[in-house]
Amino acid sequence: FPSKQAQVQTTIFTKMSALAAEHGALNLSQGFPGFDCSEELQALLAFYSKGHNQYAPMAGVPVFKQSIADKTSLFYGIDLDASKEVTVVSGATEALFCAIHCCVFPGDEVIMFDPSYDAYDPAVRLAGGIPIHLSMDAKNGFQIDWEELARTITPKTRAIMVNSPHNPTGSIWTENDLEALAEIVKGTNILIISDEVYEHIVFDGQKHYSVLLHPELRQRSFVCGSFGKTYHITGWKIGYCLAPEYLTKEFQKLHQWVTFSSATPLQYALSDYLKEPSHYLGLSDFYQRKRDLFASAFEGSKWKLLPSHGSFFQCMDYQEISDEKDVDLAERLTKEIKVASIPISVFYEKAPGDTILRFCFAKSDEVLLEAAHRLVQL
Amino acid sequence: FPSKQAQVQTTIFTKMSALAAEHGALNLSQGFPGFDCSEELQALLAFYSKGHNQYAPMAGVPVFKQSIADKTSLFYGIDLDASKEVTVVSGATEALFCAIHCCVFPGDEVIMFDPSYDAYDPAVRLAGGIPIHLSMDAKNGFQIDWEELARTITPKTRAIMVNSPHNPTGSIWTENDLEALAEIVKGTNILIISDEVYEHIVFDGQKHYSVLLHPELRQRSFVCGSFGKTYHITGWKIGYCLAPEYLTKEFQKLHQWVTFSSATPLQYALSDYLKEPSHYLGLSDFYQRKRDLFASAFEGSKWKLLPSHGSFFQCMDYQEISDEKDVDLAERLTKEIKVASIPISVFYEKAPGDTILRFCFAKSDEVLLEAAHRLVQL
Ligand SMILES: CSCCC(=O)C(=O)O
Ligand SMILES: CSCCC(=O)C(=O)O
Repeated sequence: FPSKQAQVQTTIFTKMSALAAEHGALNLSQGFPGFDCSEELQALLAFYSKGHNQYAPMAGVPVFKQSIADKTSLFYGIDLDASKEVTVVSGATEALFCAIHCCVFPGDEVIMFDPSYDAYDPAVRLAGGIPIHLSMDAKNGFQIDWEELARTITPKTRAIMVNSPHNPTGSIWTENDLEALAEIVKGTNILIISDEVYEHIVFDGQKHYSVLLHPELRQRSFVCGSFGKTYHITGWKIGYCLAPEYLTKEFQKLHQWVTFSSATPLQYALSDYLKEPSHYLGLSDFYQRKRDLFASAFEGSKWKLLPSHGSFFQCMDYQEISDEKDVDLAERLTKEIKVASIPISVFYEKAPGDTILRFCFAKSDEVLLEAAHRLVQL
Repeated sequence: FPSKQAQVQTTIFTKMSALAAEHGALNLSQGFPGFDCSEELQALLAFYSKGHNQYAPMAGVPVFKQSIADKTSLFYGIDLDASKEVTVVSGATEALFCAIHCCVFPGDEVIMFDPSYDAYDPAVRLAGGIPIHLSMDAKNGFQIDWEELARTITPKTRAIMVNSPHNPTGSIWTENDLEALAEIVKGTNILIISDEVYEHIVFDGQKHYSVLLHPELRQRSFVCGSFGKTYHITGWKIGYCLAPEYLTKEFQKLHQWVTFSSATPLQYALSDYLKEPSHYLGLSDFYQRKRDLFASAFEGSKWKLLPSHGSFFQCMDYQEISDEKDVDLAERLTKEIKVASIPISVFYEKAPGDTILRFCFAKSDEVLLEAAHRLVQL
């Protein structure tokens, strides 16, 4: 049987979570909270388990789409037309897949910055597109090399993948980054596919710069979002795509063949829940405290912590501890000291030989301290 | 902006449901129950709203996959390996999309029988494949012309789409159909993608012949199923794909980039619920009574009812009532007498000029009788 994805393996998240389970390891690999969502949200789901069990409209339950638009207006000061610019989908993964598939023609180039989330490249290939990987340099705080990007653009460039706060590194974009990107795409037909699932997790008083905030970018962007990380419900798989009407039309044409619509009771529960800004405005503080708690446990150790400005990931350099490859070390730590992490090299087309593991700190304080305790003893 | 799906419109289900809502029509168009799921299932969802809110494993919650395998064993006498042959997805639409995308290479031909469900053709095209449409004849009970199929096979034929009980017509396959198909694909590399979402709705003491039941077919088949129609939860969007290990591997490679995983609390609730066979074994009787109630209201009228052997759809010929095209009549009836239906011609590449509308009888008895009352007065 000829495989369409002969080189593709099971995603690293599935692999490491399975390995963690097998060895009874503390699972700081796959990015999900080690705690439950709020009781209020649980109660809303229980409430909407009655009478809300048939197909939602293809693009989403109207009151939910309006709640998303209202939240976008409140948080970003950007007014969207809920009926024309918002689509509810089954998780940000579906949003990314549909955004890529609805605009990438065979032979089109899509630029992404490595380390890049592992769903981008295969989605581009499956659409017949050509992924173009540029690297961000760990030594340079994973900044984008704008001159290199400008040189990489060709007449075949269809889209650029953007991701801030960045997974796996925890770097974030500034207003200058938006400006630099806008300068480059101005006057072209290049589209932006922006993965912003960590929009509400940004540290040290900094701000999330959504591509929505820059008119030159917004008019050509699919913004792919999710409620999984914001409300501790990664298992609900409810996400959305925000895009101008001409892009939303194409996006929905794809979405209707991919999943058609998303779970109705979950949409209703969320629709109520996201009306209350305090349900997401405190999230950065919540995770900043966890980041700091986790980091403090490594003081004086041989681990070098890279800056984490957003997301719930802490990258750590183990150069002084081991000369193993990151994939080998991640596997060994899971088996031996029973702490699972994610090796960064899997997110590169050509891994630069960095010695970095990613740890998810969306865990209870106890788990974080115990994991750190085991890691500093190496 | 160049559209990848320039000819594609919003699916007929979205269009007709929206038109029905706009005109306050009885909505017998899109296929979904006009009543809620059981209180027991609602209670299970409420129960699992606590503590089951993070990512499910990519291929599905293990106990749920086992429940699906156990149910398959009980109902079909077919034993599946839950860990290697079952994948949980976000609705049968995703199952169909991933099955098509994981095996169809650019230039491959995929054969389907019209009237065919409207998600098949665009999914094949998006994968770069070439949909080959054969027609089934209404006068002939929408039987497959096996000789025509045999003549249509080429070295480029990658897959054949199968759908029984059939949407939109309500026809069903017999054991002879399985045999005829097996004869044709034997010795070839042709795969089968079988849409069996109405597996538990078959009338008049007849039986559902799943492709699982024929070894020659089973070893080359993706069986796409759903719980939406079986448990009155079309809005949960939980489906599955059953396939031999070599196909399941490729299917999961696709699924991991399309939605990654499906809603955890819904999977747990269903896992418990489907252990009780009485939750689905009575379904055929339940809908047969509705079919008969609806049909009886048309006795002596000018509507000609086509046989409905399965699914929850009744096709009706309006030749003696109107000479309009079916799309025009469906629209007019929605607006004027406020009964929405689905015109059959949209499911054909080349519509044969039949005069048939599809009505969904998964509605309360009151709604069915009132809709019939309005229709017989034409
Ligand atoms: C979809 S599973 C991966 C979750 C995640 O975003 C991560 O761990 O990076
Ligand atoms: C996915 S919406 C369409 C529901 C359905 O299967 C039908 O009405 O035929």
